[in-house]
Amino acid sequence: MLNIALAQINPIVGDLSGNVSLISQSINRAVKAKADLIVFPELSVCGYPPEDLLHKKHFIDANIKALSTLAKKTHDITAIVGFVDADSKGNIYNAVAIISDGKIMDVYYKHELPNYGVFDEKRYFTSGTKRGFVTIKGIKCGINICEDIWVDNSVYFQETLAKAKVLINLSSSPYEINKINSRQQLLIKRALETKTHVVYVNAVGGQDELVFDGGSMVIDPKGKMIARANQFQEQLLIVNLAATDERNISPILDSNAEVYEALVCGTRDYVRKNGFSKVAIGLSGGIDSALVAAIAVDALGSSNVVGISMPSQFNSKATKSDAALLAKNLGIEFKEIPIKGIYAAYLKTLHKYFASTTPNAAEENIQARIRGNLLMAFSNKFGWLVLTTGNKSEMAVGYCTLYGDMSGGFAVIKDLFKTQVYALARWRNNRDNAQAIPKSIILRAPSAELRPNQTDEQSLGSYEDLDSVLASYVENHADMSGLAATKSARLYAAKMINMVDRNEYKRRQAPPGIKVSLRAFGRDWRLPLTNKYKMEG
Amino acid sequence: MLNIALAQINPIVGDLSGNVSLISQSINRAVKAKADLIVFPELSVCGYPPEDLLHKKHFIDANIKALSTLAKKTHDITAIVGFVDADSKGNIYNAVAIISDGKIMDVYYKHELPNYGVFDEKRYFTSGTKRGFVTIKGIKCGINICEDIWVDNSVYFQETLAKAKVLINLSSSPYEINKINSRQQLLIKRALETKTHVVYVNAVGGQDELVFDGGSMVIDPKGKMIARANQFQEQLLIVNLAATDERNISPILDSNAEVYEALVCGTRDYVRKNGFSKVAIGLSGGIDSALVAAIAVDALGSSNVVGISMPSQFNSKATKSDAALLAKNLGIEFKEIPIKGIYAAYLKTLHKYFASTTPNAAEENIQARIRGNLLMAFSNKFGWLVLTTGNKSEMAVGYCTLYGDMSGGFAVIKDLFKTQVYALARWRNNRDNAQAIPKSIILRAPSAELRPNQTDEQSLGSYEDLDSVLASYVENHADMSGLAATKSARLYAAKMINMVDRNEYKRRQAPPGIKVSLRAFGRDWRLPLTNKYKMEG
Repeated sequence: MLNIALAQINPIVGDLSGNVSLISQSINRAVKAKADLIVFPELSVCGYPPEDLLHKKHFIDANIKALSTLAKKTHDITAIVGFVDADSKGNIYNAVAIISDGKIMDVYYKHELPNYGVFDEKRYFTSGTKRGFVTIKGIKCGINICEDIWVDNSVYFQETLAKAKVLINLSSSPYEINKINSRQQLLIKRALETKTHVVYVNAVGGQDELVFDGGSMVIDPKGKMIARANQFQEQLLIVNLAATDERNISPILDSNAEVYEALVCGTRDYVRKNGFSKVAIGLSGGIDSALVAAIAVDALGSSNVVGISMPSQFNSKATKSDAALLAKNLGIEFKEIPIKGIYAAYLKTLHKYFASTTPNAAEENIQARIRGNLLMAFSNKFGWLVLTTGNKSEMAVGYCTLYGDMSGGFAVIKDLFKTQVYALARWRNNRDNAQAIPKSIILRAPSAELRPNQTDEQSLGSYEDLDSVLASYVENHADMSGLAATKSARLYAAKMINMVDRNEYKRRQAPPGIKVSLRAFGRDWRLPLTNKYKMEG
Repeated sequence: MLNIALAQINPIVGDLSGNVSLISQSINRAVKAKADLIVFPELSVCGYPPEDLLHKKHFIDANIKALSTLAKKTHDITAIVGFVDADSKGNIYNAVAIISDGKIMDVYYKHELPNYGVFDEKRYFTSGTKRGFVTIKGIKCGINICEDIWVDNSVYFQETLAKAKVLINLSSSPYEINKINSRQQLLIKRALETKTHVVYVNAVGGQDELVFDGGSMVIDPKGKMIARANQFQEQLLIVNLAATDERNISPILDSNAEVYEALVCGTRDYVRKNGFSKVAIGLSGGIDSALVAAIAVDALGSSNVVGISMPSQFNSKATKSDAALLAKNLGIEFKEIPIKGIYAAYLKTLHKYFASTTPNAAEENIQARIRGNLLMAFSNKFGWLVLTTGNKSEMAVGYCTLYGDMSGGFAVIKDLFKTQVYALARWRNNRDNAQAIPKSIILRAPSAELRPNQTDEQSLGSYEDLDSVLASYVENHADMSGLAATKSARLYAAKMINMVDRNEYKRRQAPPGIKVSLRAFGRDWRLPLTNKYKMEG
């Protein structure tokens, strides 16, 4: 039976020579391990998703050239590699090349082009119509790409399968909570329907707001899993389709660990792939910045994380000392920079204009923006990337300051509701029993500390209530009947939803962050700014 | 022959009751004018483009309900109105309803769904397959929607036309420089091909980054224009297809006037549709903020524009006095708020950390961010919308400060290259011969004034050279051979392109602005942030 190498690699978008070099290294290792076939993720040569790079003809040409360099070097194995192909009419295709004996033997073009959620494939690609096959050692393998295998009752798909003994799928499938379970269920169903071995190879690593979670796998014709690669790690997994070695099956992480590792992976790759080594985080003494600091330490090492506390007269002694203790626990560099002097200078400058007014969000936001300015000054001075610490609940209702706490290059926990932030903080503390995040941070009522005695709950209600409304409204586009049962719940939901709608302009200018949910505030959330729609109810 | 009303209206996305009320008013006027038929723009009931509002079932339901309320009120005329229809499977369609005698008589679904540039219609809509017809006074009219008429050799389109005497197209077609000429050429071609009257109705008004420019028109079967509505203005144009009254043909604006009016229209509608009345603009004494202030005054009236000059020790006396003179010439409120005290407070606070370093972008950006903070403080205090003043050349190469001069709700001239900024400033000065923009602003070498003796040219070369590279690279995705002929030109182009590529992160967090070119930095520019592609050459 076939010996197949699943090359779960981490390409970088646009890094054609780097990606080809990664691919070559895997091929060499697979040849040494006597694999018959090696399979790479979707669009490995150019990285996924290349977005509007696909509008540049020189980019398409360079990716084809890179593929042909790779093909020339490939011997003693068959490699199936994702790239972008072009025809003479200027159409381009999400393609795979079947390479052996130093040549490209055949190509296959993706048929089903996702154009929903974060995906825009119909913006770029023409749909292929040719079936994909390769025969190795007399065994016919059907080939398809990502979405192709997800569409039920596709005549196209059925025809391919009827003729094959092995079905190979190349994917670059972005992470969402528990998505690996849906993938497994689908692949098992396909294996049983078609009585084939199903070989699924996914990419791994972060690319802007997406994290590819790996978890490549092989299912046998009876629907039994015979191999599964790690989540969030590069791996070359070599599987003999006849063998059933339990050691080839990596365990699946539990939900908290899975989300946490997705955030670590996404942060590490965003920082490194963009040429940064060090990050700065504004430490408020609250739970959000504490979790972000812990994730950053796990992603980059404690020596690459700088915590900066910027207290004002409204910050309590307790939050100041908690920020310092957190930094100490995590072993990161810590600076405390009081903003009182700068804030006083703003008030003095504005006195003439603001003297006759009542203090409002203007004075509060000045403080947040002073902090943003200081963090960016460190970024500009020393080349550190600023990580922002806002969560999805805040981003949804706009409980955050544009150009203030929203200033920074990457928003690590932008797709975690506040209740999820607490759960992950507790999980992180218990993981190694180090309790790095001080208990008092976890127990204290959340506050922006921009005026005396402020708490989040005054503006937002309890986070349990808020997150329940947001999960339905943001992630499922629910209507009022799906959001609230009682009159008071409806009043509350209507108030929160109105805040979500009114604050689209903040989200439009927010830094990118890591998608972990069904619907994140990124490429899969495209709401108009100018929008007078009000839901009834 | 038919008497047709072209209802060039300005709907607001999501404002279902407001849009229906606009539509009703036009219908009442058309009935009084004895029109047989009134035609509205694409998706008038819900506004265009509704983007992910289309993912909300309650939104679709509410728009259908709004249409049916409208239908009940419609008598003594046939109205053709754009809306979103849904079928029982949950598919939705970019649709038109043919309404008469208080009922919806028929519906037609858009066949060709644009999914390029700023358009994502395949993300939402299912393509219709039914031909659209309505017969009025025995005259058969074919109906189609926007993109349907643009696709050559569409069997679908030919079949529709073969049977009709009049072809009606409902559009919401966004403005681009000189696009009205392409539309006219196309419509004349279609009229000649099919020997029909072609009736084209476009929307008007601003919606986020798009401006719909109106210019609705009627072409007779010989390819002669018999009516054309104004650009950038609402209008109800009633045309008897047998008549040829020259007075029905509004002139087309020349290029500078057209772009200027697009910016005025886009600014006015963004401000008003989002519930603002007043705007604040940071006046530097430079050309960009001068032009933005002039546009704002034309859009909103001088009493609704506040100019704020925020000089530092690096600003010359000349720029300071020019800012004041500009404000005086435009008749707008003017404040001068020196930032020296605040800047000193920052330097004092950071002294401990920055003392041993060489001054760099960090110190420069602090100043820009102080100005951003001050402008936003006025915005938060008094409810003014901040207009940013960055141009396309700056946005392209990143010659601007994130959270600094990029702070604000709307970026009026974001899609104008610097050379276009000069051209429009001169045009505005000559328009009414008021010379509102001081000559010294137009003549002075551009400078960010963030350090002594700084000029833009030191970093960017001449704007003529820069804009020439950018027009090819940004708007046409040209390769190096299309960018530069000589070795020194190649070196220069490579340096500028590298800046474009490296600064994607700034554009991702930039405020929206008005698209006037083929490719603006908005929905039609989707480049990855993490991107290691380097063009060869």
